[in-house]
Formats: sequence, structure tokens, C-alpha cells
Amino acid sequence: MAITKKGIEKKEYIVEKAAAVFVQKGFTAVTMEDIVEACGISRGGLYAYYSSTKEIFEDIVFREKNVDYSFFTEGMENEKNSIQILTGFFEQQKNELLRLDTTIRRAVYEFFLFHKEAALEDAVKQNYRETVSIISRTLAYGIARNEIYKITFEDTEKVANHMIILLEGLSILALSKQISRDLIDEQLEIMIKNLI
Amino acid sequence: MAITKKGIEKKEYIVEKAAAVFVQKGFTAVTMEDIVEACGISRGGLYAYYSSTKEIFEDIVFREKNVDYSFFTEGMENEKNSIQILTGFFEQQKNELLRLDTTIRRAVYEFFLFHKEAALEDAVKQNYRETVSIISRTLAYGIARNEIYKITFEDTEKVANHMIILLEGLSILALSKQISRDLIDEQLEIMIKNLI
Repeated sequence: MAITKKGIEKKEYIVEKAAAVFVQKGFTAVTMEDIVEACGISRGGLYAYYSSTKEIFEDIVFREKNVDYSFFTEGMENEKNSIQILTGFFEQQKNELLRLDTTIRRAVYEFFLFHKEAALEDAVKQNYRETVSIISRTLAYGIARNEIYKITFEDTEKVANHMIILLEGLSILALSKQISRDLIDEQLEIMIKNLI
Repeated sequence: MAITKKGIEKKEYIVEKAAAVFVQKGFTAVTMEDIVEACGISRGGLYAYYSSTKEIFEDIVFREKNVDYSFFTEGMENEKNSIQILTGFFEQQKNELLRLDTTIRRAVYEFFLFHKEAALEDAVKQNYRETVSIISRTLAYGIARNEIYKITFEDTEKVANHMIILLEGLSILALSKQISRDLIDEQLEIMIKNLI
């Protein structure tokens, strides 16, 4: 199907409605019928854009990624303080951790821990690599601006990995109801303290 | 049923055989029949000790915990260097991360991310709290012995949480096949570097 303005808007509408279904039911339990119903469109109307729940889910995961990106790149373009950018990112993550049951994250874990579908696994992995890459760049930017001085240029990727892995761990705690605002604050503070 | 030597041995046998079933099939998919078959005992023989897969699973999770404990307490009793104790613990964790598909960890995640059963959730939470507690004690022990000097007594719990949350994040990466030996080494090294 040609990528028309109407087509893009329709896909955005489907993705938004479908996301709510995945949030509520996880990944495996969702059928194309559920999404047809949530969108209030015809079966043919859905299949014109997507052929499977996996395809829709993949699109949602890809769209999520783009949000993170612009936050960092715009921050650097506007010559914002690197610690402010990172703190802002952590603040976003904290808010997401505190409302994780209203996000698609549980469905993402369900998918990538219990199903073997190469395409979406690759998307999640690519998402991970790209997030590490943009955080590394932000750290290097902060070192160059003398705002970050406890790590060197050669540490940036390791520290970016460290941040993402910690956030991953915090997500698991949040989904298993073992998390408090204080614990998140304390842990994100440690990450910042190790930089400045 | 009275706790006799034979009873304890029988439970250990059941737990060992059942663990292999959970490793292979996860939590939800396992039935009492599967465990009867794996143990090569009668249905009555199994029900004399356990009334549900949940009860067996809980016992496995509880038994796992005890291993970690003795490692730390014995290390401290024998006045071992605190960094050696922590490095040894990380080494254990690394080996487990590298063979996570042969452990019960995926079943544990399946359980505590997707099922709501208070008893086992409590067990997992208690396990978490107790692990944080023993690592905190080891850190305090290391500070008292002047082996750990980059953190203070009041940081021990935060840093212990940090270690456990990082290991949790590494587990998720391992289960989604996003991990290498180098990444684990690099991340555990950062944890040690932040102490000494």
C-alpha cells in the first residue's frame, strides 16, 4: 500500500488503539479480532495495513524508540548541559517505571523472553544498541564540555550499557511490584554521582 | 507429614527432578503429572510431599537462596578479603548468566511477571531483601576492614541494591540473548571499581 498522508494517519490510529490492547492483555493473548474491535474498523480495514499482531507490535516498539532519540539529539543541538539531559532522561524513565502497568513493557518482556521470533528480537536488540549509542554520545559530549569528569572517553559505552542494564533491572522490579519512588531516585542518583 | 531423614531426602529428590522440568517448560506449562513422570514415582508418592506445582516451585526458589547466604557468611567468618568475597559472588553470577537457559530463572520470571500468586511473590521479594541484606553486611565488613573506601557505611544498602538491580538487568539481557562474556565482565568490573 502506498504511503499516503491518510495511510500514515490510519496506521497511527491503529497503533494507538492496538497499544492499549497489548498493555491490557500482553502479547500472546492478543488476536487480530481484538484489534479490529478496539479500532472500530472492518477486518479488511485492518488487514490493508497489517497482516499480523506481530507486525503491529513491531511497529509500536519501533515508534517508541524514536521518542528517546530526539530527546538526546535536540538537547545536544541546543547545547544543553549533559547532566541536565541525562537527568531529564532518567526523570522520564522514572515516570515510566512508576506507571509501568499502563505501558506496553510487560508485553515486550513477554514477547522477548518467551517467544522466538527473529524479527522482533532484532528490533528490541537494535533498540538497545541505539539507546546505548545515543547515551554514549551524550556522555562523550558531557566529557568534552568538562561537565562529566569521573569517566573518560573510552568508558562512555561501558557506562551507557551500565545505565541501560540498571534501567532494565528496575523495570523488572517495577513489574514485580518491588519498587518505590525512593528506590528509583536513590539508584538514578548513584548513576549521576558516578559521573560528576 | 513428619520431617524424617527419609522425608527430607525424598523432597530433595523431587525438587531436583522437578527443577529440570521447570527449566525446560517454564512455570505455567508444568503439571503435577509432568513431575510424577520425571520423578518416576506414584502420584500418591508425590502428593504425600507436595500438593501443587506452586508449592514445589516455591521450595526450589527458597532452596536457591540458601546457597548465596553461606557463601557470604562463611567468607566473613573465615575473615576473607571483602573484595574477594564479592568478586567470587560475581564470578558465580557470571557463570549462571552464561548458562541461564539451563537454570530455573526463566520460569521464575514467567511466574513473577505474569502470575499473581501472593505466596511465591513474597518468597521472591524476601529472597531479594535477604540478598540485599547480606551484600550490605559484606560491604560494611569491607569498609570496616579498610578494603572498601569509595563508599561509606550509610551507602551500603544503596550499593547492594545497585548490584542486585544490575544483575537483574543482566539476567534479562541473558534471557533475550543480548549478552556476551565481555559485557558481563565489563559491568561487574564497574561495580568493583566503584568500591576501591
